[in-house]
Amino acid sequence: MNAAEKLNKKNQEGKFICIGLDTDINKLPVCLKESSNPVLEFNKAIIEKCSGHAAAFKLNFAFYEREGYKGFQILEDTLAAIPEDILIIADAKRGDIGNTSQMYADAILNKMNFDSITVNPYMGDDSIAPFIKDPGKLIFILALTSNAGASDFEKQKLENGMYLYQLVIDKVTHWNKNFNCGIVFGATKSEDLHENMKRIGDLPVLLPGVGAQGGSLEDIVNIFKEFNRKNYLINVSRTIIYKSSENDFAEAALNEIISLNKSVNQLLND
Amino acid sequence: MNAAEKLNKKNQEGKFICIGLDTDINKLPVCLKESSNPVLEFNKAIIEKCSGHAAAFKLNFAFYEREGYKGFQILEDTLAAIPEDILIIADAKRGDIGNTSQMYADAILNKMNFDSITVNPYMGDDSIAPFIKDPGKLIFILALTSNAGASDFEKQKLENGMYLYQLVIDKVTHWNKNFNCGIVFGATKSEDLHENMKRIGDLPVLLPGVGAQGGSLEDIVNIFKEFNRKNYLINVSRTIIYKSSENDFAEAALNEIISLNKSVNQLLND
Repeated sequence: MNAAEKLNKKNQEGKFICIGLDTDINKLPVCLKESSNPVLEFNKAIIEKCSGHAAAFKLNFAFYEREGYKGFQILEDTLAAIPEDILIIADAKRGDIGNTSQMYADAILNKMNFDSITVNPYMGDDSIAPFIKDPGKLIFILALTSNAGASDFEKQKLENGMYLYQLVIDKVTHWNKNFNCGIVFGATKSEDLHENMKRIGDLPVLLPGVGAQGGSLEDIVNIFKEFNRKNYLINVSRTIIYKSSENDFAEAALNEIISLNKSVNQLLND
Repeated sequence: MNAAEKLNKKNQEGKFICIGLDTDINKLPVCLKESSNPVLEFNKAIIEKCSGHAAAFKLNFAFYEREGYKGFQILEDTLAAIPEDILIIADAKRGDIGNTSQMYADAILNKMNFDSITVNPYMGDDSIAPFIKDPGKLIFILALTSNAGASDFEKQKLENGMYLYQLVIDKVTHWNKNFNCGIVFGATKSEDLHENMKRIGDLPVLLPGVGAQGGSLEDIVNIFKEFNRKNYLINVSRTIIYKSSENDFAEAALNEIISLNKSVNQLLND
């Protein structure tokens, strides 16, 4: 099953929640303090409990890079613990000149074997090309991000009246020859999302920003419902993985994702 | 000595060449094939020979990330081999939402102790803020990059007639409260550089793209000379480090940087 098929299958099963494994060693439950590898142990416990209910897992590289070379080992070991049929996204926001982007693509999509990666479009066409060569992968390109700084450049109006992020969406549509491109759109920007649903068309959408950042699950689900679209991922990190800071952290995470799935499916069936 | 002072001191000594340690394991001299750690051995040999003549070293993370966790160990060991008085740049092009950028900043500027990092501005203000907090570091923000794809977004005209990359330069000037911000400007774009020298003002400029990418050393040096500016770095990677593919690779790299320094100083004294 290629990456787009993995996402499609989960979406058809009514699963839209992507669990963000943004595992911060300073926020781990006390019961893991004695572990020789607490971050890995935490990730494995969350994965084991929640895999049956998640549409995808997303690992933000910043949380692992912080531990230096040990962090990369944890990343690789975490990957190995995720079941084969679940999409795994490297939230790495990479992008460089062509030959260098090729190395990032080799490292993350081939050697580490992630299904999917987030990519920063600023440097344009040839910085994206190496990532989208393999039709079996799924590349999420940053369009409008969830943070306040999105207004600095992404929401700048161009000469032709279009916003920069809208031009990015149009370029992604153009680049999408292999049906393996998607976009990142902040869940905190639901009005903008609504306005751009036609422009986005059939591109898969990864939506971070629900929960700690203030985005509304309900708004997002209702927008996709209104446009009869079913290929998207709502990323939730802190609200799931840190639901409890006690021994029952994995059980609490499970209950949270079950509850989120229930909310989504109630909205869809209303 | 903080990062800006390190750069300033080298520039005052007439040193403007930054050696890009873009070390590709597939391009190493045959004599290193038997080494247990050929990339590290290669880097150390280049550093030992060339340190006295380089204005800075730049390590592109893609070349190390490709080796997974071992690559990060090589990165750390390479860093340890570079003399204290030389600016070391992490060419990582990072950028994420605030709390995540903070983790990248912690990892690269604090834990790994790089003097400097390249950062991607697409996500705006709060994605940059964590990197520029420490006045002792030097942050190079991508403005106009050396690749063809720069025309896709960076060279888009905004509503007010300005190019996107020019707005980035203006924002960097505004962010530069701690005198620790610089910009990346492709050496392949010398006409654009000439047009923007007043806009750039006193910001340090990192210029990749001389050599393999086709940028002209002479053009760049003459532009900075015309504007009486002396705080810049011309990055050269492949032309120096792969000058010879034989046993004499480090000696050949040394001769190349000496020759480049001579060219620069002849142009400055003409």
